[in-house]
Amino acid sequence: MAHARTTAPVRQSSLREHNLALVLKQVAGRHPVSRADIAQATGLTRATVSALVEDLIAGQLVIEVAGAPKSGAGRPSIGLDLDPDGPAGLGLQMNVDYLSACVVDMTGAVRHLEVHHADQRKRIAEEVLADVEALAATAAGVAEGLGLRLAGAALAVPGLVQDRTLRLAPNLGWRDLHVGLRVADHPVHVENDANLAALGEMFTNPNAGRSFIYVCGEIGIGGGVVVGGELLRGSRGFSGEIGHMSVHPSGPLCRCGAHGCLEQYAGQEAILRAAGLPDPGAGTIAATDLAAGAIAGNRKVLAALDAAGAALGIVLADTVNLVDIDTVILGGVYTRLEPWLRRNIAREIGARVLASDWAPVQIRPSVLAENASVVGAAVSVVRSVWDNPVEWIPTR
Amino acid sequence: MAHARTTAPVRQSSLREHNLALVLKQVAGRHPVSRADIAQATGLTRATVSALVEDLIAGQLVIEVAGAPKSGAGRPSIGLDLDPDGPAGLGLQMNVDYLSACVVDMTGAVRHLEVHHADQRKRIAEEVLADVEALAATAAGVAEGLGLRLAGAALAVPGLVQDRTLRLAPNLGWRDLHVGLRVADHPVHVENDANLAALGEMFTNPNAGRSFIYVCGEIGIGGGVVVGGELLRGSRGFSGEIGHMSVHPSGPLCRCGAHGCLEQYAGQEAILRAAGLPDPGAGTIAATDLAAGAIAGNRKVLAALDAAGAALGIVLADTVNLVDIDTVILGGVYTRLEPWLRRNIAREIGARVLASDWAPVQIRPSVLAENASVVGAAVSVVRSVWDNPVEWIPTR
Repeated sequence: MAHARTTAPVRQSSLREHNLALVLKQVAGRHPVSRADIAQATGLTRATVSALVEDLIAGQLVIEVAGAPKSGAGRPSIGLDLDPDGPAGLGLQMNVDYLSACVVDMTGAVRHLEVHHADQRKRIAEEVLADVEALAATAAGVAEGLGLRLAGAALAVPGLVQDRTLRLAPNLGWRDLHVGLRVADHPVHVENDANLAALGEMFTNPNAGRSFIYVCGEIGIGGGVVVGGELLRGSRGFSGEIGHMSVHPSGPLCRCGAHGCLEQYAGQEAILRAAGLPDPGAGTIAATDLAAGAIAGNRKVLAALDAAGAALGIVLADTVNLVDIDTVILGGVYTRLEPWLRRNIAREIGARVLASDWAPVQIRPSVLAENASVVGAAVSVVRSVWDNPVEWIPTR
Repeated sequence: MAHARTTAPVRQSSLREHNLALVLKQVAGRHPVSRADIAQATGLTRATVSALVEDLIAGQLVIEVAGAPKSGAGRPSIGLDLDPDGPAGLGLQMNVDYLSACVVDMTGAVRHLEVHHADQRKRIAEEVLADVEALAATAAGVAEGLGLRLAGAALAVPGLVQDRTLRLAPNLGWRDLHVGLRVADHPVHVENDANLAALGEMFTNPNAGRSFIYVCGEIGIGGGVVVGGELLRGSRGFSGEIGHMSVHPSGPLCRCGAHGCLEQYAGQEAILRAAGLPDPGAGTIAATDLAAGAIAGNRKVLAALDAAGAALGIVLADTVNLVDIDTVILGGVYTRLEPWLRRNIAREIGARVLASDWAPVQIRPSVLAENASVVGAAVSVVRSVWDNPVEWIPTR
């Protein structure tokens, strides 16, 4: 039998590392939490928990706060929470119609956010990267001013990524763009924007749950699939290309070269065209225009949103049949348009998903909306600290 | 931040359990292997490895064999291999046109296999279950005669499973069938047949790799998705329903109630109808008839296989766009028909997958063919022993 899964061995030396991460995740999962709660939840002894917590406090990962009020007599309990002054993540985004940067601290709070709206399609890639670098420098300066140490930086891009190369961004028309950015001595990690947005939603949207698809409608349509609390990146990191799943195999020609892709039915430009509205470029304005038309009862707008909802529903039904996620999160322009898209998405899922009688699917608007990817980029850095806190703890 | 992933704590008491499984997986992964190889691969000390191996030998999970010949002088090396006399798995399958049972030992070898071909659609579910029970009793008797202890049993079924209930088997017309079977004092685990087939392929097909979809063409079409060496079961275990993914949203009505499902284009009955051949019922005969027609140059048969390949290609391109698997394994009747299906599957994937320039997809016939599910069912039992060997080790 080949292909046996091997896991890392647990040696004495790594026991502390493993348990540090375990205790930190307990604090992150339900804060404030007491040392006694952590001991009970993990099965570790109270003495062990106390020693590990001392390390986490020394590393500025955890702080003591007032705990939950106790009933009855006794000392007031001391709670533990994530340290807002601990290591922070820098998030960057390069999108078709905006560039952005943010700083997220250990607690998940967004401490800085800057968005520049402008159509990037008419520009040279290197100039766009230089603008991203300037946004990153500003954000790093803000972080320093707030007394935050940056643990790293990640850049969200609208396309296929291999290592630090943007292989293809169909809606920007770029190919094989190497991103050599560095921020505060860290090489910038590059990742697909919809994948990062899914991560952002997972950590900030209480309705996202543990198995969902984040669908982001912009000029392109991106998807990020989370199953069992883990981002599904696939064999080569190219997962989630829901915009190029087929609605009608002989439908209109897509920018990617195939026929009948979802983008040709439910992309921002396709909806505006069907609605008879001019294209304002920026997604936020497009969503506002479409929502205004729908609220005013404009029939062409309502029909365009119905058609987009049906196309999304067909592809999302395929998605649920294939990977059995229980929640759909609508991001990008879809967040604002969710009231008009929901009905047809639900109808197609109800009609086409074999298990729909036993496996209901929730449809929810994104909490982070257009900032999901840039926040998710910063969250990916914070999460790497959670996964490996030992690096931040001073040697004794 | 909610939804932080918590992992199990590692305490001293579970260290041995973890490391027993780790050493056993080393033996399973590349046998024969020496104690020194294991120490090197895991980072455990040679003394620790030797003590763990002693336990695994006492539990009849591992045996000593002649090792790989050494160059130069010195003692001949002693290798370790999985023990063929160790705990074994019993696999059962209930399909539309056959019932089967098998016994797989610790090494993955099939020690017993019995298949009864007959159309089950005209029968009462309880009578079918009684026949499965009889096959199981025979298999358990054979295992006992071979001196094998059964570690458990699993049943592969063609439909949606919740716990031990077959919620829906569209092609058998059954709903909500509770399976209370017990074999040799073990309750029989029930699982979707395509999921188990994917597991069977993963452990026996050297070409399957770590991220693939197993597609099983029979009267229904099932799918099992493996990503990163793990079966993707989804939020509620209903993943892999590729037969009900959409080819044309307004296509022919499917047995499931939706329109244009893959089964209506590439299911065994649809191919036979398009080919103008009578339906022999059993998949093996259908595949042989179709292959004979194709070899003879029968134009209707060739056109039917081309159409089925194109429909499969559309849905598999959607699959690759969504989850980025790198291999497609063709099972059921598709195994025999792979030479004629391959071209159109490859064409659609090449045209429709956004990342196809950087992420080639291999198309391979199944190694286990119609026995993939029943062998996978037995393998699932053996794998549970690999995951938790401590139960089999006598207390000292």
